[in-house]
Amino acid sequence: MTRIVVKFGGTSVADVARIENAAGLVASEVARGHNVVVVVSAMAGVTNQLVDYCRAIDPFHDAAEYDPVVASGEQVTSGLMALALQKRGLSARSWAGWQVPIQTDLAHGRARIVSIPSGFLDKALTENEIPVIAGFQGITEEGRISTLGRGGSDTTAVAIAAAIRADRCDIYTDVDGVYTTDPRIVPGARKLDRISYEEMLEAASLGAKVLQTRSVEMAMKWGVPVQVLSSFAGAVGSDLPGTLVTKEEDIVEKQIVNGIAISRDDAKITLLNVPDQPGIAAAIFGPLARANINVDMIVQNVSTDGTATDMTFTVARSDVHRAVEILKNDSTMSACEIRTDSTVAKISVVGIGMRSHAGVAQTMFAALAEKRINIHVISTSEIKVSVLISEEYTELAVRALHAAYGLEARGRLE
Amino acid sequence: MTRIVVKFGGTSVADVARIENAAGLVASEVARGHNVVVVVSAMAGVTNQLVDYCRAIDPFHDAAEYDPVVASGEQVTSGLMALALQKRGLSARSWAGWQVPIQTDLAHGRARIVSIPSGFLDKALTENEIPVIAGFQGITEEGRISTLGRGGSDTTAVAIAAAIRADRCDIYTDVDGVYTTDPRIVPGARKLDRISYEEMLEAASLGAKVLQTRSVEMAMKWGVPVQVLSSFAGAVGSDLPGTLVTKEEDIVEKQIVNGIAISRDDAKITLLNVPDQPGIAAAIFGPLARANINVDMIVQNVSTDGTATDMTFTVARSDVHRAVEILKNDSTMSACEIRTDSTVAKISVVGIGMRSHAGVAQTMFAALAEKRINIHVISTSEIKVSVLISEEYTELAVRALHAAYGLEARGRLE
Repeated sequence: MTRIVVKFGGTSVADVARIENAAGLVASEVARGHNVVVVVSAMAGVTNQLVDYCRAIDPFHDAAEYDPVVASGEQVTSGLMALALQKRGLSARSWAGWQVPIQTDLAHGRARIVSIPSGFLDKALTENEIPVIAGFQGITEEGRISTLGRGGSDTTAVAIAAAIRADRCDIYTDVDGVYTTDPRIVPGARKLDRISYEEMLEAASLGAKVLQTRSVEMAMKWGVPVQVLSSFAGAVGSDLPGTLVTKEEDIVEKQIVNGIAISRDDAKITLLNVPDQPGIAAAIFGPLARANINVDMIVQNVSTDGTATDMTFTVARSDVHRAVEILKNDSTMSACEIRTDSTVAKISVVGIGMRSHAGVAQTMFAALAEKRINIHVISTSEIKVSVLISEEYTELAVRALHAAYGLEARGRLE
Repeated sequence: MTRIVVKFGGTSVADVARIENAAGLVASEVARGHNVVVVVSAMAGVTNQLVDYCRAIDPFHDAAEYDPVVASGEQVTSGLMALALQKRGLSARSWAGWQVPIQTDLAHGRARIVSIPSGFLDKALTENEIPVIAGFQGITEEGRISTLGRGGSDTTAVAIAAAIRADRCDIYTDVDGVYTTDPRIVPGARKLDRISYEEMLEAASLGAKVLQTRSVEMAMKWGVPVQVLSSFAGAVGSDLPGTLVTKEEDIVEKQIVNGIAISRDDAKITLLNVPDQPGIAAAIFGPLARANINVDMIVQNVSTDGTATDMTFTVARSDVHRAVEILKNDSTMSACEIRTDSTVAKISVVGIGMRSHAGVAQTMFAALAEKRINIHVISTSEIKVSVLISEEYTELAVRALHAAYGLEARGRLE
């Protein structure tokens, strides 16, 4: 019997009518003879409201108290979804994270799942009872509620799928799959039928919002096929109407470039007149790492006179002020000038075919040069090339690259 | 060291500003050297919204799923209150019902508390940490979330107070105490400084909304002094600005009549032409009791010819249609005519002094007769007299009785 985990995001359970629609999709899978486990997010808007309450009381709130507040949203949806399934004559019951229990570490607000016992799920499925699990949350060894960070319900769903060795994890959302790029920028963007874990991971960490990065890592680690699809399109997951994120070997036609990711969450920091001496990079980035600030793209210019150099790197926009404070207080940097720029965008081309093809980066540089778009920073990995450009050129750059790599929908009559 | 349980109702924690105000009241008690445990309701309106979601999906919803949905409201407030206390430099942490654990029976939606371990609370108080407990909820022996029924947070507070042998349980609400009657009907209604458990219990079960009946029963059983007071008046509980519900022997001046309770939640059912035979009352009321329908006032007329009689009784308005269906389907009642009237009000006078004074009922009947108000049904107990009248006479009757028993505020300059 096929086992499927289906996860509904906030817009798919935004109100009672949508919860009932989602229950209908679950009923269709059951009618096909599949075993189904449901994972739910909070109703759209609820989590933001709860986060706002915490911030209003104290911007520097205790994460151990923030967690039970924000985790309540998924608890509500799990109960309502169980009621909606029962109304359709199905046997169902809700499970809060602590009831499963989804055991996490002690990092409140951004906890990681440590273990999930599968016994109760196996038992429920054997008895044809549909478990409806509140996403995004778990319980620490101290018996307190923890949450997995924004988008954590995706991770819950994939972790449950791994725990019960599910055949597939369907992530129902408000988009009908993964596109070559943002269709709001490029109307001709094409939905991908399949994409590899590696590509999805790069795309997610490069700004594609469709899946939480950690959920993709977990899917790759445990080999869980994940399908991204829309709960509004009327199609059932088992018909594979969305985009399947899967192993590279399951993808027949490997595109050199499969998509273009856009991130507007980065800021550029430039340090001028940095002493050019061994260990300087560690001196700069050590304190930032200790403050939990992620540094992404890094460029160090060649020193002309051998005494001083310039260094440019990017951090999350929300971290830029904190990063500058730390650098200012660092005696090694006392002679440096610090410049910041938050009006930048990171554009990345991603594709597993890149491994065996040369010239991918060159196509990118040429396409941007033709539009007279200046590149601030470049970084590459095995399956992606990213460039940092001024934010105002974002749409122009993405359209140019989408065309340059031939990603348009072919043969569509529109 | 004085131990106080303070409970904040929905209007006292309706938004972030009010939660911070409530935290200020707790801080004032701590500053006086008291040990404080906090119990919170859901933010005003939240529980109704959650109940509406459940009803919209299925009016006959599974109470075991309804419970985790509606219990989430108190979970949110407990976390926010802990944050607000922490912001004031106090050590505090939230406790959901299942974390305490507040063990209840299996009656989802109207569960009763079975046990509360006090160890963790004693430990927290010894360490000067303020426990903030989510009211209204507990956990069953099956490990599922249960709720205690409407107003259940009062019961949580009193149960916690009993468990830790608190010196007092302060119920902060939107009124500043218990009044001789509804001040919206009688502007001269007087706030009582003290009232006995017995009177409060009668008043609560007769329609006074200020405390949940079960919480008063529990306070009486365990001898917990309960104070009803307003969180908006600026006064702290330890100054005893509200109404203290306490033992009869602690009340010096025992009033014959201490208050007038009003209930508009009743409906009258009259059965005409009931066979006048032994066991007929059991035949009528047995099926209603089995359907969980509470029957309150009962009057059986004297049979004139010895073969048939009339029977009148009251049930909750929300039960009237169900009660009629049950009676119609009862073969014993086949010759009966069933009449219902939902436009009735029950007016009760309550006072422990009644035990030793005659003529209390007569004063009531005379005052109503003078205003030409017809009495449908009368019922009495040791410390109250209730009458059922047409709803339209409610205000007139209450004002007349308030004057007849001399309950007006004396010496007030207004």
